[in-house]
Amino acid sequence: MTCVFLSRTINLRKYLTNEIARLDGKVNFVDHLDGSNPAAVSMAVGWHPHADAFDHYPNLKAACSIGAGADSILNCPSLRDGIDVVRVVEPAQAQMMSGFVIWNVIYHQRQFGTYLQNQRDHVWKRLGGGRRPSEVPIGILGYGAIGARVASDLAMLGFPVRVWSRSAKPPTPGVTGFNGSDGLDAMLAGSEVLVNLLPLTEETRGILNANLFAKMPRGSYLIQVGRGEHSVDEDILDALASGQLSGATLDVFHTEPLTKDHPFWSHPQIVLTPHDACEVTMTAIGDTILATAEAVQAGVQPKDSVDRSRGY
Amino acid sequence: MTCVFLSRTINLRKYLTNEIARLDGKVNFVDHLDGSNPAAVSMAVGWHPHADAFDHYPNLKAACSIGAGADSILNCPSLRDGIDVVRVVEPAQAQMMSGFVIWNVIYHQRQFGTYLQNQRDHVWKRLGGGRRPSEVPIGILGYGAIGARVASDLAMLGFPVRVWSRSAKPPTPGVTGFNGSDGLDAMLAGSEVLVNLLPLTEETRGILNANLFAKMPRGSYLIQVGRGEHSVDEDILDALASGQLSGATLDVFHTEPLTKDHPFWSHPQIVLTPHDACEVTMTAIGDTILATAEAVQAGVQPKDSVDRSRGY
Ligand SMILES: NC(=O)c1ccc[n+]([C@@H]2O[C@H](COP(=O)([O-])OP(=O)(O)OC[C@H]3O[C@@H](n4cnc5c(N)ncnc54)[C@H](OP(=O)(O)O)[C@@H]3O)[C@@H](O)[C@H]2O)c1
Ligand SMILES: NC(=O)c1ccc[n+]([C@@H]2O[C@H](COP(=O)([O-])OP(=O)(O)OC[C@H]3O[C@@H](n4cnc5c(N)ncnc54)[C@H](OP(=O)(O)O)[C@@H]3O)[C@@H](O)[C@H]2O)c1
Repeated sequence: MTCVFLSRTINLRKYLTNEIARLDGKVNFVDHLDGSNPAAVSMAVGWHPHADAFDHYPNLKAACSIGAGADSILNCPSLRDGIDVVRVVEPAQAQMMSGFVIWNVIYHQRQFGTYLQNQRDHVWKRLGGGRRPSEVPIGILGYGAIGARVASDLAMLGFPVRVWSRSAKPPTPGVTGFNGSDGLDAMLAGSEVLVNLLPLTEETRGILNANLFAKMPRGSYLIQVGRGEHSVDEDILDALASGQLSGATLDVFHTEPLTKDHPFWSHPQIVLTPHDACEVTMTAIGDTILATAEAVQAGVQPKDSVDRSRGY
Repeated sequence: MTCVFLSRTINLRKYLTNEIARLDGKVNFVDHLDGSNPAAVSMAVGWHPHADAFDHYPNLKAACSIGAGADSILNCPSLRDGIDVVRVVEPAQAQMMSGFVIWNVIYHQRQFGTYLQNQRDHVWKRLGGGRRPSEVPIGILGYGAIGARVASDLAMLGFPVRVWSRSAKPPTPGVTGFNGSDGLDAMLAGSEVLVNLLPLTEETRGILNANLFAKMPRGSYLIQVGRGEHSVDEDILDALASGQLSGATLDVFHTEPLTKDHPFWSHPQIVLTPHDACEVTMTAIGDTILATAEAVQAGVQPKDSVDRSRGY
């Protein structure tokens, strides 16, 4: 089983050193355009592949992402029908995302930004203990492998949780489900914090825009941990300026690393992190590559394949 | 039933305005030394009373704190035997404390201090998603009304939790119990974050000292949300300077408000909050006052009375 690395942003051979060693004898890894026979390549590991990458491999059957989202492969112009695109699903990653989101939810709920500023100013000012979790409803865009974990943890901490997904889900204590565009409006109207955990698809691109923010209560807080292309940057800045948003945590951006002169960096109402909300472990990536290799060999669809018609 | 306000730090009549109105007809509130008959006073509401406060009220049977800790009443020199000291126990308060502690635990686990500093410096630097909760054991001093809630929430989020209390407790999933001074040493040796949720007593005063920090792994993190008198300030500063502690969140201090020139304010490894980790609600204070008044009238010990021999 020969597997090619396809990325223009990451040196995957270096990134996956230990997993390559672990899969030795089971998967033979080659580099893109390294002179080995492209017809022998039946799968790929990819992250932001070159636009024409797939054209080089006529017999390629599957391409694995190295993260939960496979959008950087799905958006590759040379990706053709008949190639299964696989993403990495790992409960431990969802747990890490949950901790990241919880920190930012409590940052807003308990006004930790004000505490940190007051400390810098040597100002002792009690804020009266803050509002209770039950008074701070959280909306989550996306209720998949990661969103579901974030939702149940926040509900357990006492926050009312409202989730939006494409398909209806069975009821869960403390979590209210919404679907469709009417459902989205209703969800937004009752949420004070909005967590974006959608995959990037043609339907979700640019969803975090002025129109959406306007449907939330004034002073809402945005936690953007999906993909940079979900954001309309100007609209986030405008909503912060007008007070429609009181603050935002941004982990993902149109261009990463974020350009040095971007206004997000020094905005007092923005918490900025470097696309680091969570990562799958190397072991989970290795396991996914191996399972995909075995499925390709067996001629079956790999586990955690994306539904290409839905786009995620 | 006449109840006197005893505080040299808070205007309790103002603080409790709504509850005074709500209890109208059931409890008659008087101010300290306001000329009304002291012999008619059978209970008090107190917070840092004057040293001689209780000497003025020969028939006083009970004194309610306005928070979870009753130490400021218990430490009053004029408090005599035969006065029941009552504290306020409210699950909603424990929930708020839990959120506060969780934020600070994740602040350490996920290195949010580094993210915030990197943002100020416009530095894009991934930290690799951070360590998983299972890799960050949390020790909690005190496993009472508040400590137990903090422990179970942290355990639910996947952190290994180790608790220290005077008496042994029934086992709980994810929470390991320790007792006594050998138990304390064992608990500390295996904890990377230490949360102080002890009451202030003669046994616990000054417990957060160099000797205790030395028993923890190097680079541990302190979350001090008990009472200022639990801390030895110099020892906290020394432990931060030596690297024995990597950081600390301090909510309580020997003198509150903390003096303007205290080195804690501008210490880069300290998160400082103004004794605001959580508050009981006014309703809970009012309910406690009313229940205490009824118990005094019935000649029985009020609910949530402190065990005066233990000191908490
Ligand atoms: N910042 C980071 O470090 C980081 C790390 C990991 C993941 N992420 C992001 O998080 C995303 C979610 O990951 P996941 O594993 O939870 O994905 P997932 O399991 O595929 O879940 C996606 C969720 O979004 C919903 N959804 C998709 N399109 C929708 C639409 N048009 N309208 C309404 N709902 C829609 C889906 O609805 P159904 O349930 O009805 O299908 C599902 O609930 C990833 O795609 C990635 O963008 C970011
Ligand atoms: N910063 C803030 O805003 C804030 C707000 C509320 C409370 N607090 C602090 O939190 C404290 C705890 O509140 P709580 O309601 O949880 O109190 P609690 O219910 O009385 O619990 C106290 C716990 O400490 C343990 N303990 C007491 N003395 C001990 C000793 N010498 N050795 C070992 N364990 C000992 C007790 O052990 P046993 O279970 O065996 O009795 C119990 O588990 C308060 O007293 C106050 O200092 C701070």
